[in-house]
Amino acid sequence: AIAAPALAQSQPTVNWRLASSFPKSLDVIFGASERLSKRVAELTGGKFNIRPFAAGEIVPALQVVDAVQAGTVEMGHSAGYYYFGKDPAFCFDTAVPFGLTSRQQTSWFEFGGGKELMREFYKEYGIMNFMGGNTGTQMGGWFRKEIKTVKDLEGLKMRISGLAGRVMQRLGVVPQQIGGGDIYPALEKGTIDAAEWVGPYDDEKLGFARVAPFYYAPGWWEASAQLNFMVGIKEWDKLPKEYQNAFEVASHEAHVLMQADFDARNPAALARLLKGGTKLRTFSRDIMEASYKAATEVMEEEAAKNAKFKKIYEPWKQFRQNQNQWYSVSEAPIANFLVSRK
Amino acid sequence: AIAAPALAQSQPTVNWRLASSFPKSLDVIFGASERLSKRVAELTGGKFNIRPFAAGEIVPALQVVDAVQAGTVEMGHSAGYYYFGKDPAFCFDTAVPFGLTSRQQTSWFEFGGGKELMREFYKEYGIMNFMGGNTGTQMGGWFRKEIKTVKDLEGLKMRISGLAGRVMQRLGVVPQQIGGGDIYPALEKGTIDAAEWVGPYDDEKLGFARVAPFYYAPGWWEASAQLNFMVGIKEWDKLPKEYQNAFEVASHEAHVLMQADFDARNPAALARLLKGGTKLRTFSRDIMEASYKAATEVMEEEAAKNAKFKKIYEPWKQFRQNQNQWYSVSEAPIANFLVSRK
Repeated sequence: AIAAPALAQSQPTVNWRLASSFPKSLDVIFGASERLSKRVAELTGGKFNIRPFAAGEIVPALQVVDAVQAGTVEMGHSAGYYYFGKDPAFCFDTAVPFGLTSRQQTSWFEFGGGKELMREFYKEYGIMNFMGGNTGTQMGGWFRKEIKTVKDLEGLKMRISGLAGRVMQRLGVVPQQIGGGDIYPALEKGTIDAAEWVGPYDDEKLGFARVAPFYYAPGWWEASAQLNFMVGIKEWDKLPKEYQNAFEVASHEAHVLMQADFDARNPAALARLLKGGTKLRTFSRDIMEASYKAATEVMEEEAAKNAKFKKIYEPWKQFRQNQNQWYSVSEAPIANFLVSRK
Repeated sequence: AIAAPALAQSQPTVNWRLASSFPKSLDVIFGASERLSKRVAELTGGKFNIRPFAAGEIVPALQVVDAVQAGTVEMGHSAGYYYFGKDPAFCFDTAVPFGLTSRQQTSWFEFGGGKELMREFYKEYGIMNFMGGNTGTQMGGWFRKEIKTVKDLEGLKMRISGLAGRVMQRLGVVPQQIGGGDIYPALEKGTIDAAEWVGPYDDEKLGFARVAPFYYAPGWWEASAQLNFMVGIKEWDKLPKEYQNAFEVASHEAHVLMQADFDARNPAALARLLKGGTKLRTFSRDIMEASYKAATEVMEEEAAKNAKFKKIYEPWKQFRQNQNQWYSVSEAPIANFLVSRK
């Protein structure tokens, strides 16, 4: 037996507040912070309590990094790429255009050097990051009109931001920053022509199909989108080792179960959307090729002028290449065969 | 704060023995039981100790279910499909031909009804099962000669077992049951013509390339292969709730990290194999189609005569269909595009 001290009786009560970037209505995503909280409490005899607050309750949705950095809250649940404006290198923690799939992202973070690179980067914000779930490949968004060629993108006003917005801009799109609740009226009035959100299960709730019926796939800017638990380093360092262990293992559980939950819910949601009149479309090869070219240019240009971005990008790029070579042998052939038998 | 009692001081010391079906040389797979053991000890102040034993140390590799059922050990780490001979329904916990991918398998188990169905099935063996890692899509094995058409399979002696062996038999193959350590000499002497094992990282260690240079993909009988922690229900029921929580969360962590670890290691292993002279081949469409047809027949026939199999198979089949419809929209298009840019 290990001669460690008993876990809880001698341990302090710790109360943390978790600021989420997500509303409770995104229940699978918000559920990850609830699952983390519940499990950590169970594992510490109720002494380490993490209370999740939905977006806006105590911190605005897109200011989680700021709040954790300032010590307003002990931790957050957010998506690195929301902080693109501070530094595009944040995007590697969530998604970059034509980036890693969900499994590849997890592998990169835990065994491909990603954790070390990202934690070094986050350190200057006083944050230690943990994997906090993944949505899988997102959809390419809702369009009022069909988009068949790159030319059809010219002048299109689309709700899309971050690195993806920059890539879209290169293809002629006019990217718009609009909060989740304002997308529907903007699409309805025609203030914007298109909007991307998440995937069928989350998109369904917002009812976009009624005002922008063309639903495109795949969301090449999010081959997967990883969410992140962001913990203040000062708070982390104060935790007993036992609480750190409880947190880490609970974060891994919340991470894997979010993806599994989305995977179970998305098929039925897509079927309901299609039944309700949504018109499913796939981006043409033409658009995919042009987007890939533009994305590569944007990434390379950023790397050329941003040393922090480059430091992550170069080994990440090698990891992606190795992964895709292996996937072309194993996962892709069987997945494609199975899909052909759907 | 939750008014739960302090975790460890008032709790009993529990010592469990874990019988693994795997040798320590399969370090990623065996590592999952070590990771589980370490984490559970950490989470219980060292009071709940699980000691993993490699295959053969206290229980023969393929008798883990028997040992847990008999109470010889409190738990095991094995693969359900090793117990095909007892009942082919065990296979759903690991892999059936043309079955679920790694992510789909996790989703099915946790959110698709799989856990409930499988635990009901395992109950008559006195076992409660937990997810215990996944290898991802396996390779199609090592062949002494090239296999171009279904005709080339005729009379081929191949080391393959379980449901896959039954499917192969229908294609003219003569399935052979051979332990891991005996495969190399059998291939070298020509006693067998082909053998399937796992994937590049594990296969590399056995040196098959020297005696059977044609390395086929994909292993359609294992679109993914989930490993399983098998716990004696009597022992589980004796655990304090806190130890059950610690076990469950640690099993989820070990589960997700095994797949991530394999994903990180396989690409380099494949590259080394190819550099060393391995000849990579893909099963022809002809072979894939014939295998799928034979696999479907075998599964349907089993369902027709085995009510326990049928009870799992029918909802599983619906889950697979829903998943593949969704994958055809989202995951497959982006993965294929990325792979084309490898």
